[in-house]
Amino acid sequence: MVLDPPLASPLIGRLAIIGIGLIGSSMLRAARARKLAGTLVAYDGSEGVRARTGALDIADLVAATPAEAVADADMVVLCVPVGAMGAVAEMIGPHLKAGAIVSDVGSVKGAVLNALRAHLPEGVHVIPGHPVAGTEYSGPDAGFATLFQNRWCILTPPEGTDEAALAALSGLWTAMGANVETMSVEHHDLVLAITSHVPHLIAYNIVGTAADLEEVTQSEVIKYSAGGFRDFTRIAASDPTMWRDVFLNNREAVIEVLGRFTEDLIALQRAIRWAEGDKLFDLFTRTRAIRRSIIEIGQETAAPDFGRERG
Amino acid sequence: MVLDPPLASPLIGRLAIIGIGLIGSSMLRAARARKLAGTLVAYDGSEGVRARTGALDIADLVAATPAEAVADADMVVLCVPVGAMGAVAEMIGPHLKAGAIVSDVGSVKGAVLNALRAHLPEGVHVIPGHPVAGTEYSGPDAGFATLFQNRWCILTPPEGTDEAALAALSGLWTAMGANVETMSVEHHDLVLAITSHVPHLIAYNIVGTAADLEEVTQSEVIKYSAGGFRDFTRIAASDPTMWRDVFLNNREAVIEVLGRFTEDLIALQRAIRWAEGDKLFDLFTRTRAIRRSIIEIGQETAAPDFGRERG
Repeated sequence: MVLDPPLASPLIGRLAIIGIGLIGSSMLRAARARKLAGTLVAYDGSEGVRARTGALDIADLVAATPAEAVADADMVVLCVPVGAMGAVAEMIGPHLKAGAIVSDVGSVKGAVLNALRAHLPEGVHVIPGHPVAGTEYSGPDAGFATLFQNRWCILTPPEGTDEAALAALSGLWTAMGANVETMSVEHHDLVLAITSHVPHLIAYNIVGTAADLEEVTQSEVIKYSAGGFRDFTRIAASDPTMWRDVFLNNREAVIEVLGRFTEDLIALQRAIRWAEGDKLFDLFTRTRAIRRSIIEIGQETAAPDFGRERG
Repeated sequence: MVLDPPLASPLIGRLAIIGIGLIGSSMLRAARARKLAGTLVAYDGSEGVRARTGALDIADLVAATPAEAVADADMVVLCVPVGAMGAVAEMIGPHLKAGAIVSDVGSVKGAVLNALRAHLPEGVHVIPGHPVAGTEYSGPDAGFATLFQNRWCILTPPEGTDEAALAALSGLWTAMGANVETMSVEHHDLVLAITSHVPHLIAYNIVGTAADLEEVTQSEVIKYSAGGFRDFTRIAASDPTMWRDVFLNNREAVIEVLGRFTEDLIALQRAIRWAEGDKLFDLFTRTRAIRRSIIEIGQETAAPDFGRERG
């Protein structure tokens, strides 16, 4: 997978990325590789991450303060955990130039839109966003320029969003290789509850349950994990702060979808108890078709076992 | 990953593999590549699979009947769904030679041991086995010779098992690249309930729940599956017959582990409802360590996102 060649002239004059983790550092790498911004500014609250960002040489300027980072920026993208959005917005708010576009990459959109609106001044364009992409690794070293290629980025423009601002943000994501879709914050939060948040919670949970069984040792769980369990450990290795914030900030949708999941699971358990093989067989056949569709639209590899290398 | 070179002389005179799916055909390929058997015999209940096995040229002889398959065999390995073990044992029982070793590769061991014992004659060595290896694909074309490399194969010899027979079976698996461990059928069925059976059930279940949500379309679930959901679709694409039989034949252990899982999940749901961020953060941190251990012992790749290629 390769990026398209650099643009002849940048899409954005000054682009500031706040929060240099997996997503922020991937945006920097993609934007730099394709020359999407005249000046690419990075800022992170951690001094160590700022130093590492400088050493990696993935930004034109590593700002020393939030104020410096956003000064004169045409677009600012917040790549911090969902629970930190309000505090960051408060820090940058007074320093934004009029007409600046402010977006984010959080996995929850309703709570983030409220947090940004509460702290950002009139006269800036607030358009939340969410690239549905990532790996289980975190930090500025984990990013890569092709992370967003052929992945979807969902934008949730509030009613009355300026068309030109939306086009500029959408253009940035498209130039980084993503497919852009727009929807309401409420719909986003429900869709992601099922395609991302509840799957993560279930993965964290089964890994926890396995670790706590008295009759089976942790060493056995680890040895025989190739039976299926190890698949779950990948997403259960995702960043704890990010995911704590996701669940705390998308409570209603997560609890609604979890209720469905548990209801369905208890029905399956009952089918097992009463040896209703046909019910199990029907479900197991239906779920195969869904994977085929995901492969067909290019969101998954067809290679057996994800094509993974043996350890 | 490559196999060791072929042996100078075979380990087993005549080896019969019954059931030529992913596992059976992988055993044939590995045994042939390393010359582990003097004569490698294959049989499958499906005429089409027998023809395909012949065309693939992965056995010395494709038998036309179960009787022909096991005649004069020193070792017979049943690679059929767990629910079919009894019927297959009944068919081959009268045709086994005295002193033959009969094993299997089923994912459940208690029920299989009972089924084999009920239908096999005195004078043959019954030693159930389970290679903890596989992919989400099925059938004779899906197998490959290195499937068992660096995976564990669990043998569950009943009390009083002949040492030489156990050594021969263990030698076969070792020669196919596996690490061999022995344990009781009861312990196997509990360990696999947590490392394999319940993870599969949860995966099937979340894919089913997602497909049934009214407010989110199936097309949205598929598009945004890279948020975590698609990981679950891999094991939810596994063979429906095999997995129906697993659940019907390991009911007690599956229901016990499911009970723990659900209890833990409801506690997590409560933590979300009451915004107990510390509880979430603690679990999410603990689960990271388990993945690291699985990677360290070589049962998982450290490559981000399983190293999977983009679609």
